[in-house]
Amino acid sequence: MNGAQSLVRTLLAAGVDTCYANPGTSEMHFVAALDTTPGMRCVLGLQENVVTGMADGHFRMSGKPACTLLHCGPGLANGWANLHNARRAGSGIVNLVGDQATWHRPHDAPLTADTEGLARAVSAWVRTSTRAAEVGRDGVAAVQAARSANGQVATLILPSDTCWDEGGQVADPLPPVPPGAPDPHAVQAVARALRSGRRVLLLLAGAALLAPGQALAWRVAQATGVQLMADYAAARVARGQGRLPLRRVPYNTDQAVQALAPYDEVVLVNAKPPVGFFGYPGKPSRQTRPDAVFHVLSRPEQDALAALQSLVDELGAPETPLPEAGPAPEPGHGAPTPEGLARTVAALMPEQAIVCDESVSYGRGFYPHTVAAAPHDWLHLLGGAIGSGMPMATGAALATAGQRRVINLQADGSAMYTLQALWTQARERLPVTTVLLNNRSYKILLGEYQNVGATPGPTAMGMLDLGRPDIDWVRLAGGLGVEAARAQTLEACADLMATSFRRDGPFLIELMV
Amino acid sequence: MNGAQSLVRTLLAAGVDTCYANPGTSEMHFVAALDTTPGMRCVLGLQENVVTGMADGHFRMSGKPACTLLHCGPGLANGWANLHNARRAGSGIVNLVGDQATWHRPHDAPLTADTEGLARAVSAWVRTSTRAAEVGRDGVAAVQAARSANGQVATLILPSDTCWDEGGQVADPLPPVPPGAPDPHAVQAVARALRSGRRVLLLLAGAALLAPGQALAWRVAQATGVQLMADYAAARVARGQGRLPLRRVPYNTDQAVQALAPYDEVVLVNAKPPVGFFGYPGKPSRQTRPDAVFHVLSRPEQDALAALQSLVDELGAPETPLPEAGPAPEPGHGAPTPEGLARTVAALMPEQAIVCDESVSYGRGFYPHTVAAAPHDWLHLLGGAIGSGMPMATGAALATAGQRRVINLQADGSAMYTLQALWTQARERLPVTTVLLNNRSYKILLGEYQNVGATPGPTAMGMLDLGRPDIDWVRLAGGLGVEAARAQTLEACADLMATSFRRDGPFLIELMV
Repeated sequence: MNGAQSLVRTLLAAGVDTCYANPGTSEMHFVAALDTTPGMRCVLGLQENVVTGMADGHFRMSGKPACTLLHCGPGLANGWANLHNARRAGSGIVNLVGDQATWHRPHDAPLTADTEGLARAVSAWVRTSTRAAEVGRDGVAAVQAARSANGQVATLILPSDTCWDEGGQVADPLPPVPPGAPDPHAVQAVARALRSGRRVLLLLAGAALLAPGQALAWRVAQATGVQLMADYAAARVARGQGRLPLRRVPYNTDQAVQALAPYDEVVLVNAKPPVGFFGYPGKPSRQTRPDAVFHVLSRPEQDALAALQSLVDELGAPETPLPEAGPAPEPGHGAPTPEGLARTVAALMPEQAIVCDESVSYGRGFYPHTVAAAPHDWLHLLGGAIGSGMPMATGAALATAGQRRVINLQADGSAMYTLQALWTQARERLPVTTVLLNNRSYKILLGEYQNVGATPGPTAMGMLDLGRPDIDWVRLAGGLGVEAARAQTLEACADLMATSFRRDGPFLIELMV
Repeated sequence: MNGAQSLVRTLLAAGVDTCYANPGTSEMHFVAALDTTPGMRCVLGLQENVVTGMADGHFRMSGKPACTLLHCGPGLANGWANLHNARRAGSGIVNLVGDQATWHRPHDAPLTADTEGLARAVSAWVRTSTRAAEVGRDGVAAVQAARSANGQVATLILPSDTCWDEGGQVADPLPPVPPGAPDPHAVQAVARALRSGRRVLLLLAGAALLAPGQALAWRVAQATGVQLMADYAAARVARGQGRLPLRRVPYNTDQAVQALAPYDEVVLVNAKPPVGFFGYPGKPSRQTRPDAVFHVLSRPEQDALAALQSLVDELGAPETPLPEAGPAPEPGHGAPTPEGLARTVAALMPEQAIVCDESVSYGRGFYPHTVAAAPHDWLHLLGGAIGSGMPMATGAALATAGQRRVINLQADGSAMYTLQALWTQARERLPVTTVLLNNRSYKILLGEYQNVGATPGPTAMGMLDLGRPDIDWVRLAGGLGVEAARAQTLEACADLMATSFRRDGPFLIELMV
């Protein structure tokens, strides 16, 4: 048994059964091992950022790390941005990177690069295997690391001789490191704060945003009057009928400061203190009031559900039904607007849909209009590195075995980063409906430019405008094997959406906004 | 004057007049400064690897560094692979990366990443500006570094407050650091080796492969009987009528070992000892004979032309005409073959064409059939990170102001990495003819897989096959604004090529091979 075969068997034994891949020469022995060892589902992405983004979506919907297979330093670099997003989302990924043979590396061949340096800049755990006999052992350590602290990026670098040499040994799975238990003193301190009569916000992130966490948070809110809010972006939020109509911290710094101004104290439930995506001249980094007092109920690597349960127990907060969401909205009419599109999506989405939201500027106001949709999960771009939506949608569909409709609300500028994901959707016949919001510009940057206090001149407009030539998303999707059509109105969009929901495979709606 | 304005003026004063950009929020002040300070040509790429690849092509054809404009750590990561290729090609690039404001960084906002760590893994020079008053000074240091040692990647990281704060100061250009002068002892040692009667190879790289270097190398060869060969890949080789019909070291390790076996001694002219792209079980890393003796006439960072001139002088080698290339070849006929396509390209290419070669496996045999083409430059993928060809072609066309026809011989798998470059070709109306070699597979990997000693099973085929669905490059190009057509025969390819050469803008020929 060679090292590659030992690694495939080790991964399977440890419960890693999906491999998102874009292999090169140095990974050929691993690919060969996949054919001799059944059980690993392999999914090809045509660029590495598609591969890593799929693994992110996979973890978010399954809670289980997949492995990736990338080629040397440059392949890792190509997939780095969506590893960054996965790191921010707390997604567990066993990130396998093939590399030069140990004895070839000193010769500084053309593809030789600082693979470890690149990996360290984005991974919670990095190891380079040194010989075939240890690849199995390194593999279980990588799986353990990927599963730790609610989910982490663990990168295992595999010099090609560690894969092709004989002497591979299958390693037994290591016990998972569970997320940290609640701190009783923190729970008591939070309970005191909630009873203090001061204005307190419970800021929810991570597992607190899934249905069981919401139910516990609601009991706390009903018992104490504390307000609830979600982080601006979250890996996964349970939404729609039977879930809490949570507000998010706004993206815009001024709006966030205003939304957070009422609160004397902020309780963090797996959240971090809210800060802007960027600093701006004369504006604060931290969006809470300067005199706001913070309490940490649970850190991101702790168990949010256990922490909320402890708080419920400490408070003696009784069970209480969630608020009614009201009737489902009516679809929008006429020319597309953010509100109209949000209502259309909410009206039409099937039960247990998965919304992958990389709508960037267009979608900032989608939340209030989708609270009464059928129960669904909403996945955000967390790390701010655009090019996440299409791969994430693909991985989410694969992780749910095509049993749930995925709706990818996708800005055009961001979509151009990883459009190759459409090909994988077509190859795997995934039920992904992409609503491509074509505004033919980097709209968010036009706003940011105006924040600079300037009117865009010709050079700036050249950098912010995606027209000249207009990008034709129907042709691009068709070229990658995905059926597509254009919509100019919300009625046309609704018709196409409804049609796509009845099909098995992917569909792209180019909505001119 | 703010920091951004001081930087734009500083760059212009230092001769950096082209900016390849994919900006984000943290670069908006730099973009605003471009509008208030005329003189910088700005070219937008829709993904950062397009941006850095254009800058590589720009340097190769102009010998002058352009600057890039990238967004934070993930933007740098997206453009990292083509920076790696540029590093291997010895291309000078002033790589500007905007980042979080100095006082915002400690808050670990979502887009915060280890930008310096990423940069160090690919740059010869890295600096993070700390305040507006020093951005100009840092800028000239970056330009100096980019121009040193024949060309390097110099990364300047710009926290956004260093751009928007007032107090910017324009800095005077620093004197360029010229490439190292020849070492007289090395020249004498090489001259002795050439007179020794042993079988000697002069291995040429870098500037030795341009026309003046070739003329000098040919004088050495005629005076001493030394054999000449080029590195497998080179940043730029002058080829065609009136240039040397140089052989390259083969890619395949067995063939390379065979080609290099005759030589007792190898003289390196800006080349490194030839090694395989990858190590293989039971095969050597170094492709020369184990007992071969190496001489270094000039290191990659030295002046190859001066070194060759010194050698000519030391040998007293007289001027001598280059060998005749013979008549131009006839175009190929019928179904595409590598040889037939090479002959077709050679027969049709206009004078001073630029061939950007990312043909990967298909194009390994193109060289012998193109020696008698019109004079042209041939640009290779140097670092082995695929996704270089289309951006490089775009940058090469921009650097030559659209005055030279660019022919991009482009493999399909690699093209999928950076197809966004087509949009920039359309926007800038660049004379780029892309011959897209569509074999619907990662053909090179099929070969490498068979080297593993295995027959690809279904899993392996799933990783190596780009069919299911077939990618339609005519639609993809059309979606990005580039006119395109499919060819099934070499005659049809020749017709489309000739038509495209008469036009101003880009054209893509999808050649089914």
